[in-house]
Amino acid sequence: MMPSNLKGTKDFLPEEFSKRNYVVDVLKKNFKAYGFEEISTPSLEKNTTLLGKYGDEGDRLIFKVLNSGDKIKKADLESFQKKDFSKFISSLSNKGLRYDLTVPLARFVTQHQNDITFPFKRFQIQNVWRADRPQRGRFQEFIQCDVDVVGNKSIIQEIELLDLYDSVFNELGFKDLTIKINHRLILISVAKYFGFNHKSTNDFITIIDKIEKIGIENAYNELCSRKKVLSKKIFYDLFDNDTTSLEKLEPILKNIENFQKGSDEIKQIFDFFSNKNSLKNKLVFDLRLARGLNYYTGLIVEVKSKNNNIGSIGGGGRYDNLVSLSKFKNTSGIGISFGLDRICIEMEKENLFPDLSQKNNNILIVNFGIQYLLKLYPLISSLRKHNFNVNIYQEENKLKKQLSYANKHSFTYVLIMGENELKNNKIVIKNMKTGVQFSKGLVDINIRNIFDL
Amino acid sequence: MMPSNLKGTKDFLPEEFSKRNYVVDVLKKNFKAYGFEEISTPSLEKNTTLLGKYGDEGDRLIFKVLNSGDKIKKADLESFQKKDFSKFISSLSNKGLRYDLTVPLARFVTQHQNDITFPFKRFQIQNVWRADRPQRGRFQEFIQCDVDVVGNKSIIQEIELLDLYDSVFNELGFKDLTIKINHRLILISVAKYFGFNHKSTNDFITIIDKIEKIGIENAYNELCSRKKVLSKKIFYDLFDNDTTSLEKLEPILKNIENFQKGSDEIKQIFDFFSNKNSLKNKLVFDLRLARGLNYYTGLIVEVKSKNNNIGSIGGGGRYDNLVSLSKFKNTSGIGISFGLDRICIEMEKENLFPDLSQKNNNILIVNFGIQYLLKLYPLISSLRKHNFNVNIYQEENKLKKQLSYANKHSFTYVLIMGENELKNNKIVIKNMKTGVQFSKGLVDINIRNIFDL
Repeated sequence: MMPSNLKGTKDFLPEEFSKRNYVVDVLKKNFKAYGFEEISTPSLEKNTTLLGKYGDEGDRLIFKVLNSGDKIKKADLESFQKKDFSKFISSLSNKGLRYDLTVPLARFVTQHQNDITFPFKRFQIQNVWRADRPQRGRFQEFIQCDVDVVGNKSIIQEIELLDLYDSVFNELGFKDLTIKINHRLILISVAKYFGFNHKSTNDFITIIDKIEKIGIENAYNELCSRKKVLSKKIFYDLFDNDTTSLEKLEPILKNIENFQKGSDEIKQIFDFFSNKNSLKNKLVFDLRLARGLNYYTGLIVEVKSKNNNIGSIGGGGRYDNLVSLSKFKNTSGIGISFGLDRICIEMEKENLFPDLSQKNNNILIVNFGIQYLLKLYPLISSLRKHNFNVNIYQEENKLKKQLSYANKHSFTYVLIMGENELKNNKIVIKNMKTGVQFSKGLVDINIRNIFDL
Repeated sequence: MMPSNLKGTKDFLPEEFSKRNYVVDVLKKNFKAYGFEEISTPSLEKNTTLLGKYGDEGDRLIFKVLNSGDKIKKADLESFQKKDFSKFISSLSNKGLRYDLTVPLARFVTQHQNDITFPFKRFQIQNVWRADRPQRGRFQEFIQCDVDVVGNKSIIQEIELLDLYDSVFNELGFKDLTIKINHRLILISVAKYFGFNHKSTNDFITIIDKIEKIGIENAYNELCSRKKVLSKKIFYDLFDNDTTSLEKLEPILKNIENFQKGSDEIKQIFDFFSNKNSLKNKLVFDLRLARGLNYYTGLIVEVKSKNNNIGSIGGGGRYDNLVSLSKFKNTSGIGISFGLDRICIEMEKENLFPDLSQKNNNILIVNFGIQYLLKLYPLISSLRKHNFNVNIYQEENKLKKQLSYANKHSFTYVLIMGENELKNNKIVIKNMKTGVQFSKGLVDINIRNIFDL
């Protein structure tokens, strides 16, 4: 049987990988320009760090790694027989593959709090693993790109991260993205307005989060099943469209605690960007934006592409309680994520990738044997120092065969040193795109003049 | 208890990570210049791909990942009770974390043979995992940097990879490295000369590989225990130093099959580089270089630092039988590896890292409140587009406090817009290294002239 990669995982061949790298490079460049620094954490974390942070479903989706060597002998068969599988598993495994980059960040910040500066502005671009059922375009191993500011509550962080979204997507060529924002304090006020209390607010938010998927009617019914008194008219008025404005909310919610704070922050953000008038993509307030995760407490954000077939290509928000993930007190923070796989899919669809074929400024050296290559090698080395990608044809062969190889693999230049050239210290340079070729003395070559860089 | 990372794994804080990235960037740049393309394979591979490729010890050191969800119920307790732990494990786990990048490469090349071009010149810089006992400087999760040419037997590949070693280490600032080479056909000839047959040759090579560690006497005794007739004089003469030359071997081995082929290749390589006279580091033949892995069949190579406290910082060789790792026929190849962790340790020791503090061309924006920042933001954006790393001070605060922060964190420039400047559309630029400061009209700023790039 032909060997193959594991279902739910993916090989990247050179062409696809260079596209992904192109996006990663743009991300990194921008992250650095906004003052973020890169860190890296291990793929493997203790189960005590990972478990209990993502809910029961999340715990199930964490890949657990078997204890090695003799420790396997400590398997707790009794628990297995009693069908206490989670105890059985914990007798076999004390570590797992990280599920996201947020829990490791909380662990990292706590552990290294004396070695880092606050506000801690870090980015991290690393794999995460989830034991989801493999589906098309949904992998068990994929890259997350996270940017977080930990330890600062200033609204300037919200503004900076929104500007970073716009800057990155603009540089990648996106023009018609929608950056949707909302505020958890506003959602909490709405929940309170509809009679949800502190405990049930998360249920409310979870259902709001599903409106686009399940439709307004199902959402309404689901909410009613939890809380009888719910004005259908007002609910539909607020949530049956994406145009509910702060002005509309104001008279309804103004007396509810926290609404003003949330609303003011959203206004400050809009004021800033409308005065600046410089966002390339659309920034909109969307009351229906809820984001599932429990730990958000302030601004929440999601970036949607025009067609929005594949969900959001970025998201994040402010959280005040990474403390619940770890034991660190100073964790008011805000973070955003870039969905690398989806960004690549979207760019492919909209034809936003530049021509990345490495061959662009690639040079093939015709191979007539080692004595020729020896003579050519100083030039080859020099070209490589000038960042040309230089390939030597794999074996001595007829010129015709080598030129046809160059053609097939889109080399831009071919350098030929035949018997005549060897004798006269010359070389023939052939531009494969134009067909033009000329001969030149080896000592006369000025790389910058001869090759279009 | 303070949360912490798993023993045997490592967090990278920004400063250390930027050093590592510096090395990786130099590697990548050179790999590309030599015509290699980057691929990526999943961290998780099927156990059927991983197991049986690294020997029993290797199999034990592979991290196995537990099957998820209900599959755990298929645990084979009977095997456990019979103490057939490997069968027990295989009832719990069908996948593991890759142990190196070579076996995944063999799987990749076989699986994608119709989608790639041969010779396939790829590089790969990814994590591998080994359940070794954690030790200082030895991790269970670490990065490998591998460069391979698969599907070509030409000696030009040997030459190119040796040149690549020299080029990379030269660019990193190493000057006194020794690139040691030997040839498996020569070692096989020596083994034959001493009476080892086809089957026991690997034992011979394994013991030669240990000479530096266990000493010549122990190596000799160990060999004698396997094969009685062994001339002590000749053995010591050949292996008690690192200066045994091909000329010395010639009369002893000339009649032994394959010696000539190995010797010729080594000579061709030396001829090439001595004619070229361009290697910055030392290339030497060392008969004692053996390399443990069984799959090498031709040239073998190792790079040693001057002090050689930490073993080799690179190694590799030619292999003809990746076919034994996979089911692919066209796998004559050659590959080299760069030991990233050890390279970083060595560079640290020899002080070879340039100043990488991001702060180098970093700018701190003094924060006197959002209306000031609003006015400054176009300039901030423009600076970021020019690749400055720009940080906005985290909150409105006194100038003195903000300047002292800039000082402490080595910012190069501070931009100050106070009340006066706001009124007059001006800005004060302070160079923190020189103490010089001057004021400038916002519209007059020419970024290239004002900041030393």
